[in-house]
Amino acid sequence: KPVFATHSSAMSFQSNCNLYHLNNYTFGTKSARPTKDQGKRWERMRQKFESEGMRRSVDAILLVQDHNHPHVLLLKVSETYFKLPGGKLKPDECDSDGLRRKLADLLSPASSGKQDWEIGEVLSVWWRPNYENMMYPYTPAHITRPKECRKLYLVPLPEKAKFAVPDNVNLLAVPLYELYDHHSRYGPGIASIPTILSRFHFYYM
Amino acid sequence: KPVFATHSSAMSFQSNCNLYHLNNYTFGTKSARPTKDQGKRWERMRQKFESEGMRRSVDAILLVQDHNHPHVLLLKVSETYFKLPGGKLKPDECDSDGLRRKLADLLSPASSGKQDWEIGEVLSVWWRPNYENMMYPYTPAHITRPKECRKLYLVPLPEKAKFAVPDNVNLLAVPLYELYDHHSRYGPGIASIPTILSRFHFYYM
Ligand SMILES: [Zn+2]
Ligand SMILES: [Zn+2]
Ligand SMILES: [Zn+2]
Ligand SMILES: [Zn+2]
Repeated sequence: KPVFATHSSAMSFQSNCNLYHLNNYTFGTKSARPTKDQGKRWERMRQKFESEGMRRSVDAILLVQDHNHPHVLLLKVSETYFKLPGGKLKPDECDSDGLRRKLADLLSPASSGKQDWEIGEVLSVWWRPNYENMMYPYTPAHITRPKECRKLYLVPLPEKAKFAVPDNVNLLAVPLYELYDHHSRYGPGIASIPTILSRFHFYYM
Repeated sequence: KPVFATHSSAMSFQSNCNLYHLNNYTFGTKSARPTKDQGKRWERMRQKFESEGMRRSVDAILLVQDHNHPHVLLLKVSETYFKLPGGKLKPDECDSDGLRRKLADLLSPASSGKQDWEIGEVLSVWWRPNYENMMYPYTPAHITRPKECRKLYLVPLPEKAKFAVPDNVNLLAVPLYELYDHHSRYGPGIASIPTILSRFHFYYM
C-alpha cells in the first residue's frame, strides 16, 4: 500500500538551495590542459566502448547569483562550444570521486592541494544511443547497448571560493534566462538546466 | 561547513519509481465537465488576480509503462490542446488537497466516492509573468508580481486502478520519446517531462 502524503507536508516537497553572489568568488587561471583531436572523437569512443564498455560521464551544475537571478558556471571552449565542468569517469571510478577529480583539474587553483567539493543530487541523466552528437533524457526504444550515460549533478558551492581555470578556456556565469532562450546554442542538456532547477527554492544570500 | 557525500552513497542520489503496465488500468467515461469560454480566458484571469492574487495551479504526472518505456497520461481536449490532469487551486487550498480534488473530478469513477491519490515530489515549477500563454521555469527578471505559479507533481499510481474520464476529453498514454520530439505540439511544460524524469530509475513491473 502506498503511503499517502498528508497535506501539511506538501510544501516540504520542494528542495532548497543557497546561492551566493558572484562577487564572493575569485577567478584566476592556470596552465592550459591538452585538448584532444575532435575529428577522431567517435573513433576514440568506439575503441573505448569495445575495451571498457559504456562511457560514464559526470558534469557539475555550479550556481551563483547576480541580481537575485541564478547563473550557471559554464566553460567556454570555443565561440560555439560551451560545456559544464566535468568529464569521463575512469573504469571502476564512482561518480563522486570522478566528478571531484574533474572539478579539481578544471577549477581548483594548482596550489590548493586536494580541495573538497560537495556533490549534491542528480538533476538529469542523458543517454547517447549511437556514436553521434545526439543525447536523450531516456534510453530510446530498441537501444540495448547505449554508448554513453552522462549524469548532471548539483554541486553546491561554499560561501566563498577561489577558482583557477586552464587558460585555454573561459569560465562564464550565464543566467538561466539566457540558457532557456538559446536551445540551439547550448544544446538540449545545458538549455534544460532552468527547467530541471525549477523545483528548487533558491535563497539569495 | 558542508557535509560531504561519501562515495558509497553516490548511487542513492537517484530516485526510484515503479511503473505498472498500461493493461493494469481500466479506462471508462463519465459525464462531460462544463467548459469555459477560452476567448475570455485572460479577462477572467485578470479579474481573479485583482480579487485573489496570483493563481496557483497544480498538475499531475501519472506514469504507466508499455514495452518497457514510460508513458505519461495526458488529457486531449481538442486536436491541438493537450493538458496534464490538474487545475487551479481554490484560495487557501493546499497543493495536495487541490490536486486530489482535481484528480477525482477528472479521473475517478463517479461511483468511487473519495478515492485517495498519493501525491509525490514536485518535478518542475512554471511561472506566468503576464496575461499571456508563455510560462517560464523561473521568474523572469523585473517581474515582481507573476500572474500564475504552476507546479507539476509526480503522482505514483497504485498497481491497478479504474479511471473514468469526462466524455468531452480523451485520456492518452503518450511515450516520453513522442513528448521529447514535439516541443511545439505539447508546449514547453509537457515537452520537458522526459528531461525532469530522467533522474529517476524506473522499475518496469
Ligand atoms: Zn490540505
Ligand atoms: Zn550584480
Ligand atoms: Zn569513490
Ligand atoms: Zn505493449
